[in-house]
Amino acid sequence: MQRYFTQDQLNINETFEVAGEDTHHIINVMRFRVDDTFEMVDGMKNVYLCKIINIEEQTVTYLPVEKYENSSEMPVRVTIICPMLKGEKFEWMLQKSTEFGASEFIIYEADRSIVKLDDKKKDKRLIRYRRVIKEASEQSKRTVIPDIHFGGKLKQFDLSGFDHTVIAYEGNAHDQSLSLNRLEKFKDGESLAFIFGPEGGLTEGEAGFDTALKTVRLGPRILRAESAPLYFLSSMSYIYE
Amino acid sequence: MQRYFTQDQLNINETFEVAGEDTHHIINVMRFRVDDTFEMVDGMKNVYLCKIINIEEQTVTYLPVEKYENSSEMPVRVTIICPMLKGEKFEWMLQKSTEFGASEFIIYEADRSIVKLDDKKKDKRLIRYRRVIKEASEQSKRTVIPDIHFGGKLKQFDLSGFDHTVIAYEGNAHDQSLSLNRLEKFKDGESLAFIFGPEGGLTEGEAGFDTALKTVRLGPRILRAESAPLYFLSSMSYIYE
Repeated sequence: MQRYFTQDQLNINETFEVAGEDTHHIINVMRFRVDDTFEMVDGMKNVYLCKIINIEEQTVTYLPVEKYENSSEMPVRVTIICPMLKGEKFEWMLQKSTEFGASEFIIYEADRSIVKLDDKKKDKRLIRYRRVIKEASEQSKRTVIPDIHFGGKLKQFDLSGFDHTVIAYEGNAHDQSLSLNRLEKFKDGESLAFIFGPEGGLTEGEAGFDTALKTVRLGPRILRAESAPLYFLSSMSYIYE
Repeated sequence: MQRYFTQDQLNINETFEVAGEDTHHIINVMRFRVDDTFEMVDGMKNVYLCKIINIEEQTVTYLPVEKYENSSEMPVRVTIICPMLKGEKFEWMLQKSTEFGASEFIIYEADRSIVKLDDKKKDKRLIRYRRVIKEASEQSKRTVIPDIHFGGKLKQFDLSGFDHTVIAYEGNAHDQSLSLNRLEKFKDGESLAFIFGPEGGLTEGEAGFDTALKTVRLGPRILRAESAPLYFLSSMSYIYE
């Protein structure tokens, strides 16, 4: 079923109005009519089954009729600390990582990064990236839309805010003692940062820039840059969901 | 390092010639010269570090100088039984699943499949798909190139050749008792089939067509069709590698 997000706090059998561009989507894209239903995630991250009770010009009025109890969010919060990637690979990584449960994205300037952006370009990109993430959140039935922003050089990152920081370093593909499954289990609610390198790989300086980093290998094969977060997120989901 | 595949059985310090289109790749794409090195996987699935000792017109002669001992293949053999998917999504799934360790692909005709192909088209597609898989195998340092072919309707599949067959059924996204991590562990060398549905999902008939099927959910979020095998393969790699 189609899912939307609102900042409102919904209540059963109280009427609400759909905001902004979702109105256009409901009327012109989905071509919903009165009595059609959709899912709405409200400001409290609760999910409601909603029924359209009135459509007038650009105003859609709806009624939350049922509250869902199941959560689709990972018990551990995973922030993906990612380099810019060439072409469509980056947006693809955002879409998939959102599907796979990432809670946030921070883009860093990799030493070997091929893509360089000025601030004007960055702002434009963020608008597009947020749309990709929002659509993937709706499609995969997330209750949270992951945020995304630009950070600086990896070495300037302050990781103290994370309970754990895991970094995938290609050089370790054959060191089984660094397998992801050798890591201690994390606790529900803990915050994780996952760092991976660009097409050209991480430099040694980046791979060891913080003593808190836990270096892992993602299996014995060499994954493309954009594949690394999917391997990590799938494994986290496998363990904790 | 660049990796190629050969049917020859290599031996240290014996000279060999590069076959067919790899010759073009070495001379014109990689622009290798005498003394440059690459990796070659031979017919016995052994990996050798090789050195070019002569390049003449369209003939590249090389010398295996070192044999690698590490395997990059999964201890369990995973066959991906997949529907045709729209547009580039299918080739993308093949590339990623190869990276993530799949050992074989069988394409089935899904009840809700959007894409239909006649035999002539199928043959053309297979040629392209095999190239995608071969390149992903080289890039991810596989020692086996996964095979791919077309099967018929899912309900006509004979699964008796597999030790286990796992099927992902979207309807179960919220049934935690079907989480992948509730499955018994598989033994090294066992053969696994993993089945997932097309964009429109599996029909009930397909989801339960064989009593040997083990139904699983791939986390609580709704994954796009092409994402399902990556979640499964990552989890298998997490457990067994």
